[in-house]
Amino acid sequence: MEPAGAVLEDHAVAVRDGRIEALLPADEARARYPGLPQTDLDSHVLIPGLVNAHTHAAMSLMRGLSDDLPLMRWLQEHIWPAEAKHVSPQFVRDGTLLACAEMLRGGITCFNDMYFFPEAAAEAAALAGMRVALGLIVIEFPSNYASDPEDYLRKGLALRDRLGDRPLASFCLAPHAPYTVSDASFHRIATLAAELDLQVHVHLHETAEEVARSVAEHGVRPLERLRRLNLVAPNLIAVHAVHLDDAEIELLGRHGCSVAHCPSSNLKLASGFARVQSMLEHGVNVALGTDGAASNNRLDLFQEMRTAALLAKAVAGNAEAMPAHAALRAATLGGASALGLGSVTGSIEPGKAADLVAVDLSAPELAPCYDPVSHLVYAAGREHVSDVWISGERRVQGGALLPEALSVLDTRWRIWQNALEGHADA
Amino acid sequence: MEPAGAVLEDHAVAVRDGRIEALLPADEARARYPGLPQTDLDSHVLIPGLVNAHTHAAMSLMRGLSDDLPLMRWLQEHIWPAEAKHVSPQFVRDGTLLACAEMLRGGITCFNDMYFFPEAAAEAAALAGMRVALGLIVIEFPSNYASDPEDYLRKGLALRDRLGDRPLASFCLAPHAPYTVSDASFHRIATLAAELDLQVHVHLHETAEEVARSVAEHGVRPLERLRRLNLVAPNLIAVHAVHLDDAEIELLGRHGCSVAHCPSSNLKLASGFARVQSMLEHGVNVALGTDGAASNNRLDLFQEMRTAALLAKAVAGNAEAMPAHAALRAATLGGASALGLGSVTGSIEPGKAADLVAVDLSAPELAPCYDPVSHLVYAAGREHVSDVWISGERRVQGGALLPEALSVLDTRWRIWQNALEGHADA
Repeated sequence: MEPAGAVLEDHAVAVRDGRIEALLPADEARARYPGLPQTDLDSHVLIPGLVNAHTHAAMSLMRGLSDDLPLMRWLQEHIWPAEAKHVSPQFVRDGTLLACAEMLRGGITCFNDMYFFPEAAAEAAALAGMRVALGLIVIEFPSNYASDPEDYLRKGLALRDRLGDRPLASFCLAPHAPYTVSDASFHRIATLAAELDLQVHVHLHETAEEVARSVAEHGVRPLERLRRLNLVAPNLIAVHAVHLDDAEIELLGRHGCSVAHCPSSNLKLASGFARVQSMLEHGVNVALGTDGAASNNRLDLFQEMRTAALLAKAVAGNAEAMPAHAALRAATLGGASALGLGSVTGSIEPGKAADLVAVDLSAPELAPCYDPVSHLVYAAGREHVSDVWISGERRVQGGALLPEALSVLDTRWRIWQNALEGHADA
Repeated sequence: MEPAGAVLEDHAVAVRDGRIEALLPADEARARYPGLPQTDLDSHVLIPGLVNAHTHAAMSLMRGLSDDLPLMRWLQEHIWPAEAKHVSPQFVRDGTLLACAEMLRGGITCFNDMYFFPEAAAEAAALAGMRVALGLIVIEFPSNYASDPEDYLRKGLALRDRLGDRPLASFCLAPHAPYTVSDASFHRIATLAAELDLQVHVHLHETAEEVARSVAEHGVRPLERLRRLNLVAPNLIAVHAVHLDDAEIELLGRHGCSVAHCPSSNLKLASGFARVQSMLEHGVNVALGTDGAASNNRLDLFQEMRTAALLAKAVAGNAEAMPAHAALRAATLGGASALGLGSVTGSIEPGKAADLVAVDLSAPELAPCYDPVSHLVYAAGREHVSDVWISGERRVQGGALLPEALSVLDTRWRIWQNALEGHADA
């Protein structure tokens, strides 16, 4: 990632105390660090751990619960009733654990989560040994988790106070969306974000309907409303950002904002086509998100890299749009920067955490190989991930999960499948 | 596939002499066929073998040779010089063998090929034990393979005469595209197609430039030109079909034509967005193709199913467009029908060939499962294919290729990689 486009052959990464100590030719590494334990990766490419910049991890329990439906029918007849009946700390813990298993196996080392009961998501991420940005969700209406905006914020901030010193956990303020959060709540969030130096993670300009509704109710489009509320700043993570005009893209770029681009979800819900190449040209920091498994249905950043890179070309009418390296950057350093973790993870640089993913390029479907970056984005899949380390701790070896905690999965998700089946398509 | 949308639980497929003898509840099968060898698939879904309705298999050797370039620069500076220098019967045999390895592991049992030296592709498909529709390519200009349109046709028809009785091989006439084939050649092809009862496989309306050029040179759009030459008929396989107006979609539907939709390739080359939902509504037989590995870069129909189903929704602005079952149908029976093999393969029905694929749904990334068809399209990947049979012969077992012939791959593709490296991006 740094310098952009660099591909180093026959190199080694030296790790000490969970951090990258040095990046150097393999021969030099053997000479400089003799006798240290080493892992040989002879048919692999080593990349920074992937950063999932937007998900609702616990919704993995609703993967494929219903598909191919218009957004409002899907929400009103399937997702919301299922959530109202079943969402609890146990649901969020079990669902997030399942999501962590999927994400880890697919080379994702860090995820930005927005869901109810973030303390349960935190517990699951800790069990899985994953880096997580916990969204302190705020939404105007009551849920099983909290009763009103103040209650959401109070619970979220208390969690942050409790977990603030965990090395793999960070926090975002996560107002759900312009159509579910009031001006008063946004105002409070802007103040807190400045005081506590937190990112603000919000669904924004996802559908044409959202934009039209804002114009009808507030007299302005959602982004302009947020701008007036002092939320357009470098700590803004605009999720989806599908329906943006030129001036809005320019505004996001000028203020150093991030967009969490979720191409699969935007297609599946027929939200539309985000103008990613234009965002890149205007200096917007583009990150990639899977969204939740209920609307994707895979928590797979290899898939999102490929879909983003391919789609950007047809949307821009330009086969040079979002080249492979730009997609890989969005899935790594772009995500880390969006989450305010640009100095911690997202690239293989001395001083950063050793969040590393080895991708085995020896399968016939990856032969021949003229350019490993092209293969990572256009040809490889998460199934080619062989090894994953987070802060130097190995979590995946030979494609299999290591943490014993994840072995509880086999029984736990089945309980929820049975409970949720009544909410599936008839 | 037949009846549409049927998902049968705890069923068995009985196979005799390479054909499906019966489809019945597993208990009944054990009672009716006691003592016969059986394969238990207890966490799997069994689907018809996938049919790749458009590829240039040998181009697997040019996978990722160059990417992120405008179409004409990509062709003129990389692909065509590499082809002119290297394409030979050995190149086609080795490249097709590599493609077969990839396709078989990904659940593809039949492919429709368009490339030079189809006799070499036939040899590779026979070694791999795959069903193949061999395109008898016709192009106006000379190549390493043939000198002029008559020479292409003569060589193709001679191959058909020689291989006509091979059980897994069939043939299509394959005029390359409207901009590379003359009226005289199209006229001859229309006559031959009628005489010999052959499908006609042609790139059509792939780019806006192709359509504009036809209007400038022939006074009509390419499809209208083909209609006047008597080529718009049930045996037409229109590949790509990106730029079609309402009347053209209606015309294809009315004449029972097929479209080989190649969504990844259409995005990667920035060709545009095919109107697949409109095609389905107008009765066009929609099949799916990977295109060649140089412009995709994976020969993966799971990926094409997913991309087709997701993209159709955003293109139509309707989350109900191309539901999961329609995508699965396009990748199986749609493809078989396009190739004139609708009575041979593409569904699990008594009398058809036992072309079968088992997909293991037990991985954490596929849990939970409310609807196996949703999972096949939206969540699973080719890596979940565990077993593949073609005409009852097992070709893949536990995710690994069986035919010993494919073990030659490891050395052969490396030779070509070295030879082709000079044509890669600088």
